[in-house]
Amino acid sequence: MRINQFIAALPGSYLFSDIAQRVDRYLSENPGKSVLRLGIGDVTRPLAPYVANAFADAARGMATAEGFCGYPPGDGEPDLIEAINRHDYRSRGIKLENDEIFISDGAKTDVSGLQELFSADTLVAFTDPVYPVYVDSNAMAGRLGEYVDGRWTRAVYLPTTAENGFVPPLPDKRVDVIYLCYPNNPTGTVLTKEQLKVFVDWARKNEALIIYDAAYKAFIQGDEIPLSIYEVEGADEVAIECSSFSKTAGFTGVRCAYTVVPKKVKGRNGDQWVGLNGLWRRRLGSKCNGVSYPVQMAAKAVFDEEGWRQVQENIVYYRNNAKVLLDTLKPTGLSVFGGEHAPYVWLKTPEGISGWEFFDRLLNKVQVVGTPGEGFGPSGAGYFRLTAFSTLETTVEAAKRVASCI
Amino acid sequence: MRINQFIAALPGSYLFSDIAQRVDRYLSENPGKSVLRLGIGDVTRPLAPYVANAFADAARGMATAEGFCGYPPGDGEPDLIEAINRHDYRSRGIKLENDEIFISDGAKTDVSGLQELFSADTLVAFTDPVYPVYVDSNAMAGRLGEYVDGRWTRAVYLPTTAENGFVPPLPDKRVDVIYLCYPNNPTGTVLTKEQLKVFVDWARKNEALIIYDAAYKAFIQGDEIPLSIYEVEGADEVAIECSSFSKTAGFTGVRCAYTVVPKKVKGRNGDQWVGLNGLWRRRLGSKCNGVSYPVQMAAKAVFDEEGWRQVQENIVYYRNNAKVLLDTLKPTGLSVFGGEHAPYVWLKTPEGISGWEFFDRLLNKVQVVGTPGEGFGPSGAGYFRLTAFSTLETTVEAAKRVASCI
Repeated sequence: MRINQFIAALPGSYLFSDIAQRVDRYLSENPGKSVLRLGIGDVTRPLAPYVANAFADAARGMATAEGFCGYPPGDGEPDLIEAINRHDYRSRGIKLENDEIFISDGAKTDVSGLQELFSADTLVAFTDPVYPVYVDSNAMAGRLGEYVDGRWTRAVYLPTTAENGFVPPLPDKRVDVIYLCYPNNPTGTVLTKEQLKVFVDWARKNEALIIYDAAYKAFIQGDEIPLSIYEVEGADEVAIECSSFSKTAGFTGVRCAYTVVPKKVKGRNGDQWVGLNGLWRRRLGSKCNGVSYPVQMAAKAVFDEEGWRQVQENIVYYRNNAKVLLDTLKPTGLSVFGGEHAPYVWLKTPEGISGWEFFDRLLNKVQVVGTPGEGFGPSGAGYFRLTAFSTLETTVEAAKRVASCI
Repeated sequence: MRINQFIAALPGSYLFSDIAQRVDRYLSENPGKSVLRLGIGDVTRPLAPYVANAFADAARGMATAEGFCGYPPGDGEPDLIEAINRHDYRSRGIKLENDEIFISDGAKTDVSGLQELFSADTLVAFTDPVYPVYVDSNAMAGRLGEYVDGRWTRAVYLPTTAENGFVPPLPDKRVDVIYLCYPNNPTGTVLTKEQLKVFVDWARKNEALIIYDAAYKAFIQGDEIPLSIYEVEGADEVAIECSSFSKTAGFTGVRCAYTVVPKKVKGRNGDQWVGLNGLWRRRLGSKCNGVSYPVQMAAKAVFDEEGWRQVQENIVYYRNNAKVLLDTLKPTGLSVFGGEHAPYVWLKTPEGISGWEFFDRLLNKVQVVGTPGEGFGPSGAGYFRLTAFSTLETTVEAAKRVASCI
């Protein structure tokens, strides 16, 4: 058989696998050493007990006639969808029907799968640096051309750096799709409603689609920053929004997420307009059999009053970690960004060295693992990401060690 | 934006959604009626208590520092993989390395996702009738041409009917990939090792790949029928095998499956040969974040001695249902197939009517729901599938009612 040349053409391994291998190599060459990990965005706080209890009860209930559940609905358990609509959308004045919300096993599954709805020649724009999954999933589908000197020849990059205050420029030509992630991974920065409106208006005018990744929305503080792109008028005509329980409720090992595909969002098929809601449902119907029922019951418990209270305790804990990173690193004179409305702190490397050089310096000198900006795209060069998802103790110690390397 | 024309071109809704809608319409037009469902292949027996306990313990443990788990490994928990290798493969003399086994949330996810490894112009053969997911996932990727009169113009169909004793013919031209499912869905028939070897030998000779769906292997009785394609010599050079806990252990609502991609299986990229194991790992790395940790702990418990004993009780229960269907329907003179090594009974409709006509007759006259053969492909015309996954009581009553309609 002949393989998909575009997967074979992907550069090396997936970023975080690559980092894991470097760390493993260091540890095998330096027995007895241990490293402090502020690299991959994985949570460390145990699950909220209220949520774990709901999970366990549903799991144990599967052994009883009353509690057993076979194939879950492909688009999600109605009670969970209703809880999401009520908590995340209706309460904020956003009107969505429940069949515009789809449950999945992870935002990664959805943000990587949504590109299947695009035509083969769809032109895609990405803010840069960016979560690698948006780019890789489109590259695998053959939409991005060739990978030359760290750039895909057919991708449209929207550089998002200190120079423009981390507000991405609009594409300088017509594109079909724009991926946006706010609060941003990796920069930890956010857009105001007005800044987001610029993109929504552009998408409406240019018949473009926005894939909006809101996986980190739980970290937004205050009322100024939108929690959902649908707070922007007209966004429900052009935007698909992905959210996740991973960071909101520590579900990285539980696996549950949700994606909104409003019925008003349409794409062209020749001279016809086709609703993406039905298209996504059709795709899901042939490609998955829904999400584990006990997992969905755990997710539902997140929105109960006690569940939400417990979940917030963990968010507060991680927010404090981000503050520790900012408070320790800013006095060193480093340029440090993000960390206020996001669990990520993004810094400019000292002396203009590359992110990978800084990675190696931190790993070898002080045994701290972060993520080099280059891993997130060409405009990530010379930047470095630290996450706030570790324990407070590790964060305090790692921040000190990083500061000592400046 | 412009949509993927190939998803829009898919015929109607997914088969089982279509059936569900017909049943819902019947029920809303006939209030007070209830239907006996032998349609979709969903299980009904509660989860084995031993397995549910392991599931619940892992779920509750997520609230503790010791029991918490973040992102699971993308290819699966090592302990689960080792249990699968030991139980399903090593014990039967099949040599696989653990990194040739990948855990997923469902065989549907894998059998629909594996086509992403194929080049865009890959030519694919399907036994016919067939589980619709193989066809639909390739159609969505644009490989099957157009859908004309119930057939895809670029698909190669291997008719598998009573005429050839349900032994599919070899493709009459070179193809890149062949999908095989044994025990077969929908026909409930099996292939002997010798019959399977014909396909393995052909694939080796023709540089073709076999995607082997073994989701129903738990229903095989005796020692004559292979449980794995790797029991055939050389299959580890040409075959990927998908298995699932759904039917083996009643996991349709729990969601866990596994796929073997041997390192010897390779595909061409121009004049280079590329291993599919690494390609699949790369694809998973960018498209999913592993399977829920407590779900994997439940799956692991299936292979413990007590777990396996309890799981077998349910298999025996469903096997008896299949026997009830066979014993009730054969005396009517109907041609009835399958049901011995599989949870599906496949019958030729009476008087040569279409499967959909028989579907409507059963629904309207005796309120029994099955699956029309046409839903599985052109050679399914005039056949009908009944499943053994209902309760014994429902199965006994439904069998009687179906017999009354002959």
